[in-house]
Amino acid sequence: MVSTPDAATAGRPRGRSAVAVPELVEKARAGDLRSVGRLISLVEDESPLLREVMALLAPHAGHAKVVGITGSPGVGKSTTTSALVTELRRAGQRVGVLAIDPSSPFSGGALLGDRVRMGDHAVDKDVFIRSMAARGHLGGLSWSTPQALRVLDAAGYDVIIVETVGVGQSEVEVAGLADTTIVLLAPGMGDGIQAAKAGILEIGDLYVVNKADRDGAATVRRDLRGALALSQRPEGAWKPPILMTTAQNGEGLAEVATAIEEHHAWLEQTGELLRRRTRRARDEIEAIAVTTLRQRWAGLGRHAELDGLAEQVARGETGPWAAADVLLASHLE
Amino acid sequence: MVSTPDAATAGRPRGRSAVAVPELVEKARAGDLRSVGRLISLVEDESPLLREVMALLAPHAGHAKVVGITGSPGVGKSTTTSALVTELRRAGQRVGVLAIDPSSPFSGGALLGDRVRMGDHAVDKDVFIRSMAARGHLGGLSWSTPQALRVLDAAGYDVIIVETVGVGQSEVEVAGLADTTIVLLAPGMGDGIQAAKAGILEIGDLYVVNKADRDGAATVRRDLRGALALSQRPEGAWKPPILMTTAQNGEGLAEVATAIEEHHAWLEQTGELLRRRTRRARDEIEAIAVTTLRQRWAGLGRHAELDGLAEQVARGETGPWAAADVLLASHLE
Repeated sequence: MVSTPDAATAGRPRGRSAVAVPELVEKARAGDLRSVGRLISLVEDESPLLREVMALLAPHAGHAKVVGITGSPGVGKSTTTSALVTELRRAGQRVGVLAIDPSSPFSGGALLGDRVRMGDHAVDKDVFIRSMAARGHLGGLSWSTPQALRVLDAAGYDVIIVETVGVGQSEVEVAGLADTTIVLLAPGMGDGIQAAKAGILEIGDLYVVNKADRDGAATVRRDLRGALALSQRPEGAWKPPILMTTAQNGEGLAEVATAIEEHHAWLEQTGELLRRRTRRARDEIEAIAVTTLRQRWAGLGRHAELDGLAEQVARGETGPWAAADVLLASHLE
Repeated sequence: MVSTPDAATAGRPRGRSAVAVPELVEKARAGDLRSVGRLISLVEDESPLLREVMALLAPHAGHAKVVGITGSPGVGKSTTTSALVTELRRAGQRVGVLAIDPSSPFSGGALLGDRVRMGDHAVDKDVFIRSMAARGHLGGLSWSTPQALRVLDAAGYDVIIVETVGVGQSEVEVAGLADTTIVLLAPGMGDGIQAAKAGILEIGDLYVVNKADRDGAATVRRDLRGALALSQRPEGAWKPPILMTTAQNGEGLAEVATAIEEHHAWLEQTGELLRRRTRRARDEIEAIAVTTLRQRWAGLGRHAELDGLAEQVARGETGPWAAADVLLASHLE
């Protein structure tokens, strides 16, 4: 059984009647990979069925540990993810992987790539691997990722790894979605630039220097340690450890798995876990509310209304704020 | 007189009573550069005074030609902008320049950089140069740029150049704001990658190959011509010309200025100008409406409400869609 259902058909049944949401949810919860895949496709497709899906899933979520892995291209994110999956499987954990490319509106290519790169796990039915595109004009990531996480969480995966390419703002955004964020570095990547990147010193719960067998790995660790010592964290905050790995042969991954456990225990003890998940839910609710409104504005009759207002503003007949007031007022009845 | 008012003080008067909006607007319209700068600072600061400012400016806007200049780092955007300003000044046009860095939350450094790079024009009172950061969590550019454009437009600038670093999505966003979008290329920049970049073939009204005196410029033009021939534009659409410049010594800029005029005439004749400006206003209204709502949600009593909903979702007691409904309903009275 292949754990990545075909993106071209999943969630797009021949007839609408083919989707019975409660049945699909039930099958996904029972571990049917095809049903899990279809639910995630509903998220990708921004399906109106999600309202019902999420309501049914909500009571069953909250058990999975969400681990974010981010880093510049070339540091070995996919290899590290794959090696971490191996380590977690050894401990009997069921693992979900969401690979997110915030810069690409396409998921097909990346999906195929993942299938190849994650080949070791492609036939393991306790590993679910899925690439997700960040579609949508605004708030794409904060809208889709929490909903996809809820699918995997309710489907009983113990650990969900969210892998993202580190590109500016989206890196920080995705870090906000995880319980534990791993920042990956490697020697020979222009380390000064890596460390100087906005936010990198603030978002990591664990730092992993990959390719530890190469020249310069110790230097990366030393520089990172120095930078972290200088960066200000509040009193009583978690002190992020720096770990060394050679993901290619699995070296150091057991220590990463242990550090994830330790961080998770700390999150639970301090109440930070609920705070982080509340913050994630806050962003999710806001993103859904804003998207709902925008869809109403783009709706049939409303579309003409917004266009009419826009033409008035373009002609200088009214100001944009007054037009926004009219738009909001017409949806506040 | 220096045309870029000090970012540290503009728009931040000592006492709130110091800002009399109608007076500030009147002075800006009369050509007072300091007042223009303060109005743009109000945009950057997301001031609540903007509601009144935009209403007062709206009837006086719509005359300026908005020219967007975008391209990868290193193609010579600033040099080309500066040379184009020189050309336009020769023809007696008053010129505003907005330099936007979508990846940076800071404007101070870029401002200083612009002052140096645009040194030729720093003492010309008919040239207004301003760097703008793209602040705000969502929709930063589509919120702030149209409002800043309205300030310069109403202040009587004949041409407003919006210069942006081409970085993925924001490049396309900014192109949507201009009447005429110039895509800048140069030899030796990894040309295949340049042309393959998402959107570049769709967004340009004019293509300019800069550094035309260097090896490879003719190849860039040939490749671009081929790619444009393959890209599908609808019947009767504008056929974007490819121009060659050496911005360093001003060569070819007269032709660019002429092409801008020709494109503008085409926009007016076909009614496309009003359509583009209506689309721009549409995005602006939507961005203001969404921002207004988010501010309400983040407001004092409402903040607690959203947090309460978020905690319920985090605990699995309710779904995110139901929570979004509650949030929207409580603001729809």
